Amino acid sequence: MVATCRPGCETVLIMNTQELLATTVDEHAALVGGLIETALAKRATETVLLADALDRITAGVVFSPVDLPLFRNAQMDGFAVRSSDLASVPATLPVVGEIAARATTPGALETGTAVRIMTGAVVPEGADAVIPLEDTDADGDSVTIRRSRTPGEYVRERGSDLREGAELLPGGLRLAPRHLAALAAAGLSTVDVIARPRVAVVTTGAELVRPGREVELGEIYDSNLVALTAALRAAGADVTLATRVGDDVDALLAALQDAATTSDIIITSGGISKGEYEVVRELFGFLRGTVGEVAMQPGGPQATADIAGIPVIGFPGNPVSTQVSFEVFVAPILREASQLPAGEKRSLTLAGSVSSVRGKRQFLRGKVVDGDRVEVVAGPGSHLVAGLAASDVLIDVPVDTTELDDGDSVETWTL
Amino acid sequence: MVATCRPGCETVLIMNTQELLATTVDEHAALVGGLIETALAKRATETVLLADALDRITAGVVFSPVDLPLFRNAQMDGFAVRSSDLASVPATLPVVGEIAARATTPGALETGTAVRIMTGAVVPEGADAVIPLEDTDADGDSVTIRRSRTPGEYVRERGSDLREGAELLPGGLRLAPRHLAALAAAGLSTVDVIARPRVAVVTTGAELVRPGREVELGEIYDSNLVALTAALRAAGADVTLATRVGDDVDALLAALQDAATTSDIIITSGGISKGEYEVVRELFGFLRGTVGEVAMQPGGPQATADIAGIPVIGFPGNPVSTQVSFEVFVAPILREASQLPAGEKRSLTLAGSVSSVRGKRQFLRGKVVDGDRVEVVAGPGSHLVAGLAASDVLIDVPVDTTELDDGDSVETWTL
Repeated sequence: MVATCRPGCETVLIMNTQELLATTVDEHAALVGGLIETALAKRATETVLLADALDRITAGVVFSPVDLPLFRNAQMDGFAVRSSDLASVPATLPVVGEIAARATTPGALETGTAVRIMTGAVVPEGADAVIPLEDTDADGDSVTIRRSRTPGEYVRERGSDLREGAELLPGGLRLAPRHLAALAAAGLSTVDVIARPRVAVVTTGAELVRPGREVELGEIYDSNLVALTAALRAAGADVTLATRVGDDVDALLAALQDAATTSDIIITSGGISKGEYEVVRELFGFLRGTVGEVAMQPGGPQATADIAGIPVIGFPGNPVSTQVSFEVFVAPILREASQLPAGEKRSLTLAGSVSSVRGKRQFLRGKVVDGDRVEVVAGPGSHLVAGLAASDVLIDVPVDTTELDDGDSVETWTL
Repeated sequence: MVATCRPGCETVLIMNTQELLATTVDEHAALVGGLIETALAKRATETVLLADALDRITAGVVFSPVDLPLFRNAQMDGFAVRSSDLASVPATLPVVGEIAARATTPGALETGTAVRIMTGAVVPEGADAVIPLEDTDADGDSVTIRRSRTPGEYVRERGSDLREGAELLPGGLRLAPRHLAALAAAGLSTVDVIARPRVAVVTTGAELVRPGREVELGEIYDSNLVALTAALRAAGADVTLATRVGDDVDALLAALQDAATTSDIIITSGGISKGEYEVVRELFGFLRGTVGEVAMQPGGPQATADIAGIPVIGFPGNPVSTQVSFEVFVAPILREASQLPAGEKRSLTLAGSVSSVRGKRQFLRGKVVDGDRVEVVAGPGSHLVAGLAASDVLIDVPVDTTELDDGDSVETWTL
């Protein structure tokens, strides 16, 4: 290939000879997966309010600082009694007071008396059973109890749900509402969780314009910044930086250095194919990264580098290539790190026929019809961003398949 | 039952005679579902930035304001040519310039010449094919092309992905990253979406203390506020207000009136059983709501009311009752409104035996073991908040079942 000698071209030329020629999808996924796993293993623990803890992952076992329930309390609205006073029923007892569910320190219950009690209220010393309201007849200052109860009935003993010091929640648990409820019930207002994956996104290309602005001929709207940011969030990551740079190596380097200070991982789009002005390729050359071809379509050019110890994953810039690259190389491992369900893969029946390129694993855009059939939508072009939006699966065509016929079984990745 | 005459007791007594005695779970679910559906049907449309639009639902069809691609551009790095100049190959053509992917208005390509072109760059007038770099040999100011190309090859025609004015996205679509990418690619920076369900949470009870504070004997930590807030968010709702009131009808009324100004739906917990100081029951009496018993455990007491046209759904206050009530009566319909997947229900094999109360549909807390067996964790007590946290399914025991044996098939709701 031709290369005009620009700053850094020497390194780029060296790199070209080291290119990952015809690397397989699985090989590149293993490379990227390893980089991400190593980066995520270094994540810090952070303390968050319960209100912010939904879907976060506990950093360690949480032990209960209290007994649950906190105190012996009534399970029903009714009357607290000594069960020994109900040896024969019906029995009529004087009602000597009332205990509501609120801060209170009731005196001990005398033998031969009853106290009106509400659900959740402190059961007084001496009382050992609560008689539900529906088993009683109240008459002024006394109550007639129609059936006897054994000791402990309708009494919730202190610590009967969980003892102080016992495990309230395990470590590595993705926090659902019921887990937050348990933390709150134990009086905790915060929880230690593993930091979310912090990922920066840098899109590159002199042709890119922010949506909403005017474009001139030759410019296009940057869809990758929006798509990668949203895809990262959907995969459980925090997006620490989302920025766009033109075809300027210095600006790109500055953006990556900036991102590296706050991120575990950096993703770039664009600038790694074989044309001129491939700034990511150029910079990754300086950084002694890898830039090469993966045997897939879309998404053939792929790159990795390291900046200040932070892995940089370089995707190609065509919108469909960028999005498919994310789904194939990054989304699975981020979802796993956040304990999100893995993307669904299923076999469907192809509606129509497809030809594919030998030597490249194709991820065609498909739409499910009639439940278990899938038809190809849009062509294979990696610029067909509306076509991708109209699809709901990727059809995974094996590397050596060149023809698929109507009725063939195909593997699909649900988007 | 006994009732001390307090303000509003007349209405409460009327209500007691109107009580929904032994209403079934399905009947109450239909009542609550209808109230929520009616409330959600009134939701407004709002315009949000693409960066905030993930998982939102489009308010209507979005038509593309532009052709996609915006202009005729190169699919490959290479040379733009007139295909008629390649009638015999190899053919050597003078390279008269270079077109990069950026703002530019190239002149028309003269017959018998080639121009260096980058992926995505404007294909000049006159050129009708792009020759990939790998099919060429460059030599100074000329290029030798080794194979011919038919008109249109490696040229992306303007509008070939989507025409201006055509449907870019349908209405009622939950926005995934690829949909946001399509909006951005068309130059849109915002999208009209349906407002999320706006739900207020009001927990009640003089015994409730905010987690993190000190408790006195008789007080417990409020876990319902945290649990309902998180559960609402997990079900796709915006929580507009989350507040706690004591056993004070005026304060409750003020909170509901406040909530009604910003919410589609209000959920309360506590205050609807048969004891004293049941402020929700009292207020719902004034409001001519329903307070009654549903044939289920936990979660028997259930209530509804209307305040300023906004439905109020009243759950019982025991933490397990509150959370199960949400799962059974509210979560399914909110999830559907947000196009979230329905909660998974599946048949599992019971490990151990269980006895249940005739006439009540039980939702026991269970834990899946060995993949397809489920064991009961914790007792049936509706205060066992740690037990609920330790479970991963609810075991749905039919209303008339009183005994289940080891090995029986049971229906479960995945939490």
